[in-house]
Amino acid sequence: MSTITRLRSSAPDFEATLKKLLAFDAEQDDAIEAATARILQRVRHEGDAALLELTNQFDQVNASNVAALEIPAEQWRQALTSLPSSQRQALEVAAERVRAYHQHQRQESWSYVEQDGTRLGQQITPLDRVGLYVPGGKAAYPSSVLMNAIPAKVAGVSEIIMVTPTPHGQRNAMVLAAAAIAGVDRCFAIGGAQAVGALAYGTESVPAVDKIVGPGNAYVAAAKRRVFGTVGIDMIAGPSEILIICDGKTLADWIAMDLFSQAEHDELAQAILLCPDAQYLDAVEASITRLLPTMPRADIIRTSLRDRGALIQVRDLAEACAISNRIAPEHLEVSTEQPEQWLPSLRHAGAIFMGSHSSEALGDYCAGPNHVLPTSRTARFSSPLGVYDFQKRSSLIHVSAAGAQTLGKIANELALGEGLPAHAASASFRLTGK
Amino acid sequence: MSTITRLRSSAPDFEATLKKLLAFDAEQDDAIEAATARILQRVRHEGDAALLELTNQFDQVNASNVAALEIPAEQWRQALTSLPSSQRQALEVAAERVRAYHQHQRQESWSYVEQDGTRLGQQITPLDRVGLYVPGGKAAYPSSVLMNAIPAKVAGVSEIIMVTPTPHGQRNAMVLAAAAIAGVDRCFAIGGAQAVGALAYGTESVPAVDKIVGPGNAYVAAAKRRVFGTVGIDMIAGPSEILIICDGKTLADWIAMDLFSQAEHDELAQAILLCPDAQYLDAVEASITRLLPTMPRADIIRTSLRDRGALIQVRDLAEACAISNRIAPEHLEVSTEQPEQWLPSLRHAGAIFMGSHSSEALGDYCAGPNHVLPTSRTARFSSPLGVYDFQKRSSLIHVSAAGAQTLGKIANELALGEGLPAHAASASFRLTGK
Repeated sequence: MSTITRLRSSAPDFEATLKKLLAFDAEQDDAIEAATARILQRVRHEGDAALLELTNQFDQVNASNVAALEIPAEQWRQALTSLPSSQRQALEVAAERVRAYHQHQRQESWSYVEQDGTRLGQQITPLDRVGLYVPGGKAAYPSSVLMNAIPAKVAGVSEIIMVTPTPHGQRNAMVLAAAAIAGVDRCFAIGGAQAVGALAYGTESVPAVDKIVGPGNAYVAAAKRRVFGTVGIDMIAGPSEILIICDGKTLADWIAMDLFSQAEHDELAQAILLCPDAQYLDAVEASITRLLPTMPRADIIRTSLRDRGALIQVRDLAEACAISNRIAPEHLEVSTEQPEQWLPSLRHAGAIFMGSHSSEALGDYCAGPNHVLPTSRTARFSSPLGVYDFQKRSSLIHVSAAGAQTLGKIANELALGEGLPAHAASASFRLTGK
Repeated sequence: MSTITRLRSSAPDFEATLKKLLAFDAEQDDAIEAATARILQRVRHEGDAALLELTNQFDQVNASNVAALEIPAEQWRQALTSLPSSQRQALEVAAERVRAYHQHQRQESWSYVEQDGTRLGQQITPLDRVGLYVPGGKAAYPSSVLMNAIPAKVAGVSEIIMVTPTPHGQRNAMVLAAAAIAGVDRCFAIGGAQAVGALAYGTESVPAVDKIVGPGNAYVAAAKRRVFGTVGIDMIAGPSEILIICDGKTLADWIAMDLFSQAEHDELAQAILLCPDAQYLDAVEASITRLLPTMPRADIIRTSLRDRGALIQVRDLAEACAISNRIAPEHLEVSTEQPEQWLPSLRHAGAIFMGSHSSEALGDYCAGPNHVLPTSRTARFSSPLGVYDFQKRSSLIHVSAAGAQTLGKIANELALGEGLPAHAASASFRLTGK
């Protein structure tokens, strides 16, 4: 079994092979679906009582009531001061950069007035209250707290309720510190489908929110899908992906490590390199072989690269862009000289990292843009998490008396054409002379 | 049984009564779910063959192949010229106003450069190809074609594929004319879950799209929910709603007809009036009683008002705004003098119609703003359909060599804190001196 698949875009079977490599079907597990439905029903109808029982059971804690599961803000501040200063400073600088970038995404209300005095526009308002799910245990990511909470705060959300499971009562100091930095308002030590249910429906102790964001395991994803409509949700993320387009001039070790940085997430992560230069692909493969044994997460990386990775020799960089558009990757590195020249050709990607110094890892933590990105080809129709996900719009329509005359006749005509006579009458009643 | 429920916000049981009145649970029907899943599977795996068989069966037509189900553009143009000139002109003026309004929603790419030369921003691009579902038969709404297709075209979508069922082969001239005006690119006479499947997965004859928008029956809604993730979808709409806040100075007949215009959609539609003036509510009730028998759709209106409507006496207009925020209505009329004063108090609504001349029907057809609006309290977290639904963003990250030094150290620190050493190495490899 080779380290990583080698392909050439000029090979006759390339299309079929690429399709097979990309294939990933997020099957929904019936058992998980059924268990999630039961949990949500219980939390919806029994409130705190169900939430407490399920939390004590799944997280193996022994809380006497849900109030005892709230982690007071004092504890987050203690967590923040307890961090090594280099870590605290890294979190604070990252938060500040994420905040500065997201300020550019704020949208403002707008309107315009027509000649007859009719005013049209949109009023833009923040969501009232947002729930933020943060996984606990081994995959506890403080960067995820920053990336989800800061855009909401920039949007003007008044209250962020964070939930995070604490198996055996273990609380992650870095996650709590990130909550303090990001401006989270309240935090409960709850998780799983029961936490999603509590946020969606509200219980005696946990307030109902308007939208739930943040990553989670299969139960959390299933629960988010089910409560969608009652509350808003962000995207359900698939395995992480990186696609690198390289002109062969970046140090091969850098590219190899960029591929690793995606592959180390989990065995299903996908890391693909496109380059016109076969010798460069050889050099990257050699770097992979040499560097892989030095990596702490070598087993995960090895499986990911073997099963889902590829080094693809393309005809030229223009073809690389075309292939990239078909893949619509979550992360796209354009590791070339003058990468801007390719931007107009790149239609679908969650984030585009340009030039040899823009490693994807910088974007994960501190460049400023969000690291919550569309996966599994959804970049064809969706966007990075942003301030716009925590704002919503109301159309504004102020028709003048004069405007009602012009518009009323048109609406009357079209409503009658559609067989809706009350619509027609509601417009024609406002015509003068009626 | 009274014509419409009368309530007072000061009554002790008001909260409970209002909650009951608003209760609407969109139960998913297991039989519909199962049938939809089977249809989607068939279309996905058998393509044209399944699409043809299902269309011939459900729409009772007799097409020999899917190509024969495409309605050529020539037919839409004929449909347009065949319309009475008043109808054609109304459609064209409405389209032009919708286009002009939505031009204001276009978002442009942006970026900024930091002191060390690092450039950050977002590239905004249109979706490539969009599917537009248009119901056929009795509820065929040309206005819906305009409202869905025009924002997509303003966004820059290169190809809109419209699908519309034609039971017994009957084609609706006004719908086809609207397609010609709105700039639809291709149109197929297919419908139901099979049309949604064809758009989501593609068949030999129907190209796969990136997003599916437009209203449909329970099968269409179930199919859209199921293909979400493979393609984007718009919101699944619940029953239509209007909430009117009135100071008692609008002609009572106007308000009664505005309530009717929502109630005539279907029996589940909801029409509610809030006013501090009990005598005015009496006057509106009298208008309802007098006008109802004159309405062609009186039976639907009567059931809707009786089961789901209400005239509510509030303490004052400020309380009316607070109640409105809890309801988060699809359509909100602020039929008062100086309605702008209430805007800052109105946080959640799909569209806000201000002043006595702004009847909701004008917004349905020709004011300019979109008539596809969030229902069932989803205005708490979502927005009218707009150009932004047909654009998506890619983050842009171009880190300079100098920037990679600063950011690399932070990313390295945080990645190690999260237990992701390849992320750390990918950042630290770019530090000079390494």
